Amino acid sequence: MFLARVEGNLTATRKHPSLEGWRLIICQPINQAGEAEGAPQVAIDTHGAGMHERVIISSDGMATRKAVGDEKSPARWMITAIVDETQPA
Amino acid sequence: MFLARVEGNLTATRKHPSLEGWRLIICQPINQAGEAEGAPQVAIDTHGAGMHERVIISSDGMATRKAVGDEKSPARWMITAIVDETQPA
Amino acid sequence: MFLARVEGNLTATRKHPSLEGWRLIICQPINQAGEAEGAPQVAIDTHGAGMHERVIISSDGMATRKAVGDEKSPARWMITAIVDETQPA
Amino acid sequence: MFLARVEGNLTATRKHPSLEGWRLIICQPINQAGEAEGAPQVAIDTHGAGMHERVIISSDGMATRKAVGDEKSPARWMITAIVDETQPA
Amino acid sequence: MFLARVEGNLTATRKHPSLEGWRLIICQPINQAGEAEGAPQVAIDTHGAGMHERVIISSDGMATRKAVGDEKSPARWMITAIVDETQPA
Repeated sequence: MFLARVEGNLTATRKHPSLEGWRLIICQPINQAGEAEGAPQVAIDTHGAGMHERVIISSDGMATRKAVGDEKSPARWMITAIVDETQPA
Repeated sequence: MFLARVEGNLTATRKHPSLEGWRLIICQPINQAGEAEGAPQVAIDTHGAGMHERVIISSDGMATRKAVGDEKSPARWMITAIVDETQPA
Repeated sequence: MFLARVEGNLTATRKHPSLEGWRLIICQPINQAGEAEGAPQVAIDTHGAGMHERVIISSDGMATRKAVGDEKSPARWMITAIVDETQPA
Repeated sequence: MFLARVEGNLTATRKHPSLEGWRLIICQPINQAGEAEGAPQVAIDTHGAGMHERVIISSDGMATRKAVGDEKSPARWMITAIVDETQPA
Repeated sequence: MFLARVEGNLTATRKHPSLEGWRLIICQPINQAGEAEGAPQVAIDTHGAGMHERVIISSDGMATRKAVGDEKSPARWMITAIVDETQPA
């Protein structure tokens, strides 16, 4: 699971039907200093994450399919937590 | 799922039979500024994505196998949405 | 499985219920020289890893779901070992 | 699935029995300009790919296990197509 | 599957019970020129790989779990072959 920052959302008229009605959030993996690490991921949001908030995202396909309620969905990556704070080591 | 840009397509005479008849699209993962992030992926297209369009691609093997209708297919990555617009955070 | 260093932990009030009660540890993949390699991962900790300790983390979703006891959990990545020492080649 | 270029092959006397008799090809992921992107992968070849040819490789473990005919094989990554040509966007 | 070089091993007293008794090898993915590519992986060794040897490593979780004999193990990545030689394209 990545620590990530919410960097935007997107709209798509043509999409897999299982994505209908879900917020699609652009999440940028970051390190603890807040610096970008690698490519952003588009994740399903079930927690109402706000812009610039830090979140945990998971690539788990099975769990994301269950979240959207379609066992044949290509959906992967979902926001699994909204981060309150991090304690550096 | 990656935000990506359609950068080309490819033809292949010799290929796994499950890929027969599908458009094979070269999709470059990008960030919100449109800059390339990492290696391009070859994805199955079921939405008729146009060149230079922004799309969401998913690595889900199970969903891609179902899309091509062959449970033994090595196909992975499919275009799951055509992006209308993104709203930066 | 990555060799990683414990770099912090995080708290999250809003989260998937399966993450309730588990320590969420920020683990930075490293090489043998201790240099960071790629993006940090957030992992479940069942071993009581201390800050700055070196650990092995695994991305296995199935094992992590079993560890948290919820077959529908999006949890991935768990600390699978606390490293005593490494012997360079 | 990655667009990749065949960069070599390798021989291995000591190996998992399921790899016996298969060509093991070193495939370098590339972009459309032919530039290397990330680490090379070792893939099973069922198509007779020639050196320097461009191919599509897939990480699908299930399909690769079926290709080698051993449900317990650790084999992953197989060449799924030989590219005739690419059309840039 | 990555081409990799054996760069060390590690010991861990506190670990998932399924890792008990297995050699844990630090494997650095490399290209054909022997240059490091990406983060090292910790892999189970069933072949007796020697230090500095080149190996093929696979991320297959299912196969690794079968190798260690525990269906709930978080073990991933195993050495699947010891490379005799590579032939550049």
